[in-house]
Amino acid sequence: MTKGKLKIIPLGGLGEIGKNMMAVEYGDDIVVIDAGLMFPDEEMLGIDLIIPDTSYLEENKAKVRGIVITHAHEDHIGALPYVLPLLNVPVFCTKLAKGLISVKLKERHILAQTKINVIAPGGHFNLGLFTVEFFPVCHSIPDSVGLIIRTPLGVIVHTGDFKLDYTPVGGQPTDLSRLAQIGAQGVLLLMADSTYAELPGYTPSEQVVGNAIDNIIANAPGRVMVTTFASLISRLQQVIDAAAKHERRVFIVGRSMTDNVRIASDLGYLKLPADVMGRMDELSRTPHDKTVVITTGSQGEPTSGLVRIASRANQHLSIVPGDTVIFSASPIPGNESLVNRTIDSLFKQGAQVFYGNRTQAHVHGHASQEELKLIMSLTKPKYFVPVHGEYRHLTLHAKLAHSIGIPLANTFVLEDGDVLSLDSNGGKIGAKVPSENVYVDGLSVGDVNSAILHNRRILSRDGVVAITIVTNKHTGRLVGRPAIVSRGFVDVAETSDILDSACALAAEFLNKEDNHTKGRGVIDNELKNALDRFFYEKTKRRPMILLVHVKV
Amino acid sequence: MTKGKLKIIPLGGLGEIGKNMMAVEYGDDIVVIDAGLMFPDEEMLGIDLIIPDTSYLEENKAKVRGIVITHAHEDHIGALPYVLPLLNVPVFCTKLAKGLISVKLKERHILAQTKINVIAPGGHFNLGLFTVEFFPVCHSIPDSVGLIIRTPLGVIVHTGDFKLDYTPVGGQPTDLSRLAQIGAQGVLLLMADSTYAELPGYTPSEQVVGNAIDNIIANAPGRVMVTTFASLISRLQQVIDAAAKHERRVFIVGRSMTDNVRIASDLGYLKLPADVMGRMDELSRTPHDKTVVITTGSQGEPTSGLVRIASRANQHLSIVPGDTVIFSASPIPGNESLVNRTIDSLFKQGAQVFYGNRTQAHVHGHASQEELKLIMSLTKPKYFVPVHGEYRHLTLHAKLAHSIGIPLANTFVLEDGDVLSLDSNGGKIGAKVPSENVYVDGLSVGDVNSAILHNRRILSRDGVVAITIVTNKHTGRLVGRPAIVSRGFVDVAETSDILDSACALAAEFLNKEDNHTKGRGVIDNELKNALDRFFYEKTKRRPMILLVHVKV
Repeated sequence: MTKGKLKIIPLGGLGEIGKNMMAVEYGDDIVVIDAGLMFPDEEMLGIDLIIPDTSYLEENKAKVRGIVITHAHEDHIGALPYVLPLLNVPVFCTKLAKGLISVKLKERHILAQTKINVIAPGGHFNLGLFTVEFFPVCHSIPDSVGLIIRTPLGVIVHTGDFKLDYTPVGGQPTDLSRLAQIGAQGVLLLMADSTYAELPGYTPSEQVVGNAIDNIIANAPGRVMVTTFASLISRLQQVIDAAAKHERRVFIVGRSMTDNVRIASDLGYLKLPADVMGRMDELSRTPHDKTVVITTGSQGEPTSGLVRIASRANQHLSIVPGDTVIFSASPIPGNESLVNRTIDSLFKQGAQVFYGNRTQAHVHGHASQEELKLIMSLTKPKYFVPVHGEYRHLTLHAKLAHSIGIPLANTFVLEDGDVLSLDSNGGKIGAKVPSENVYVDGLSVGDVNSAILHNRRILSRDGVVAITIVTNKHTGRLVGRPAIVSRGFVDVAETSDILDSACALAAEFLNKEDNHTKGRGVIDNELKNALDRFFYEKTKRRPMILLVHVKV
Repeated sequence: MTKGKLKIIPLGGLGEIGKNMMAVEYGDDIVVIDAGLMFPDEEMLGIDLIIPDTSYLEENKAKVRGIVITHAHEDHIGALPYVLPLLNVPVFCTKLAKGLISVKLKERHILAQTKINVIAPGGHFNLGLFTVEFFPVCHSIPDSVGLIIRTPLGVIVHTGDFKLDYTPVGGQPTDLSRLAQIGAQGVLLLMADSTYAELPGYTPSEQVVGNAIDNIIANAPGRVMVTTFASLISRLQQVIDAAAKHERRVFIVGRSMTDNVRIASDLGYLKLPADVMGRMDELSRTPHDKTVVITTGSQGEPTSGLVRIASRANQHLSIVPGDTVIFSASPIPGNESLVNRTIDSLFKQGAQVFYGNRTQAHVHGHASQEELKLIMSLTKPKYFVPVHGEYRHLTLHAKLAHSIGIPLANTFVLEDGDVLSLDSNGGKIGAKVPSENVYVDGLSVGDVNSAILHNRRILSRDGVVAITIVTNKHTGRLVGRPAIVSRGFVDVAETSDILDSACALAAEFLNKEDNHTKGRGVIDNELKNALDRFFYEKTKRRPMILLVHVKV
């Protein structure tokens, strides 16, 4: 019997290929891996979120068997509230992921109609003719898994986001034995996390961080405030343990931090020693050298806990000399200046601030080059597809694969929307499926298009000038002078003569005799061009010009 | 005789204190150090440049004796075309700086009326009762100097931007002997570059880079394209020398690169071996393994040489597999995503790309912690003021000073606009002088204020809706229906009903009887609020609403 084709389709990740969503298809069955979101970069003006393009999945809705979640970070689960109503399929995930996903679905009132199946790491289940097995991986949130997907054509291993950590805190280490076993049986395709494929060597263990934080707390003369990602449960555990050891009480500041501590301790992922956790109303009575605060704001987000403390907007807590602040997180690319501004502000108020790599108060959650090579060596895949990284990371990851003996011809560096077809003869990249960024702005999903963004860009640069032209509905002739209003263009108090002159120019233009022979579109265009030239000459700026026509 | 007060005033640097401009004042004399510009961050919408606030200097114009330039980077000379017409004072600088400054002043037609005095490194001159001596420092542009300023109260040492490099390429090493000599005679105040005060150890020599680049060129199978800062003359020299050694010809791409190569070679700072430099029309005939291209674009600037090559917009040159691209520069904070996008695009087209610290194709131009301590140890200042860095860098630099024995009470961490007064009794930070960011946008300097930026920010988020209301000039009653136009708000083709409903809402509102008892300002405000609520309910967006009133 000839085998059919296995299709591998990365569907979204805002430049990080396959990060937010991938599809695996064979015959009449599609398994979706993850459904995450990204936050906009500075060019996507006014956009709240970006979610993957699911139009291919919607077209093939009858084939989609379920969404399999590798771990509970936003970039892997955040699009579920938008995607589930379109696809209406069950979700498969570990216990912590179910807890965090449920909160999101409840907020959007779609929890009741969603079937969420909890699968323990090590467990497996059938989806159409696929069998999916969760294997434990270590990452910066507990209960993370990679996938072993059995297909009619062979076995796929998808690592999810992972690192190796032989001494993890709280979670399980990546199950190398299982990977070796599967590798011995034969792996058709490995898809592996490329996020840190640029980094030589090994990623340090989470325990390194525990020692660093313990050391800072031990020597701090006053309060210690630690900021980190709310989902980094192992980090919270280490801070709480260090606080307990040094007989300090722990206060949680920030909504997402409070929520996550509650969910993680309810589900057993966070152990809270007796009498360590304090209530906010006890904070002011607690001696400074007996206080540890855990808070959001590690990325300098303007409304986060730490930033509000730093800007003296938190009613319970403001910085005094003697305070120590630990940034137990690296700035995500793009957030550097917000983070730096927060650090500067803390220093100005007299805090001691520990930040940056050299304090060892943070390690990241992705594998470095030697770990990536180890995974390839254990799984010995026939084909290799690097995923979860920008194009350069995938390229470097493909080179690593080549360096340990995977032929270049068997390595496929894909982009979102590419369809890799594998069959018994080999692999081939075919025609693309839709994989545009889908913008969420306010209530609407997908209505913000490139024309709207283009207009916002123009508006942001030099502002807007609105000119109203009133004409007689019978004669078509101008009534009175055009009216003009501007915002974000020039200081109207100081330079109103520019707007007056523009009005005069528009009136003169519209009163020209030969206008009667032209269509309205032509006249509008000529007038806009004339005004644009006038403004540019006077100011070297090009505001957006809006013409409003009124007939009376 | 009691001595007067010596004032030290950092005036601008967009968060990097004193980077763009400082003033030193005693009695009736002011010396200005540098006059540079900064580029806007992403929140300063539409702004072209930021220059220092010179209002304090304008108020004290009669005292200002001259502007002393430490080196010819934009952040130290770029504001001269804007500042010189206001202050009308002579400039003192080294030869290369004069060459680069002259180009700028000529473009703005103010070269003829400006007196530029060339002072060789090691030379000195009088400015009022100050004597200023240039001492050679090593930095990432030749002919950089620090300042030894003799004042009635004692000697000031200002390092300018500097690093130590015992084997510099082209330029001179930092003159440690002179600093030791001055230190032995007694230094009142040291002001030193804090840019890399976070970095432990020593900054590597420029020669390290030469070896790395030579090695990449030696092994490259095809063309090699090197991108770096146009002002980094020593780097250009090393690339040209490596090309000559490997019998490759060099082609220059990018306007600022071409200009700088010409000026630097005319003035003798760049040595061009015979027959190495090629003309663009020879490029297509030159074998790929005999070609080196030096180009702008190391920061991913959209109109730069390399970015145009990467986006296939350069008519002479596009990427083919076998090409090698070297990023011989680090991304300036804020430019990371532009740089990464360029790297990804080059990889996609089949180039081999060398980038990042690990390739050793770049070293930076500022001193690290051990070098900073060495300078303090040699100069043994009584007072210390860290400059050129963001607040956290200055704080860390002050801690370094404390660690080698300078008392905390004698260290002053200033912000722009702070006035440090030193006299025989000690130092004190007094009332601030103006030090706002002065925005250059198009032709105008300083007219863009926070209200304009605020409006641009609102426009950039959710666009604009302009509504024209026509009323009868006698009765004050609405004529017809309001007219409405929007941009950047919603997709008008798909959601025109929102705008229609807004028109109807406005008409109904304006026809209400009780409006006659209210003033126009009150009515406008109420209408805007009603429309704002309506748009937010329908879309969760808040466009800027412009009301245009027309009476007929």
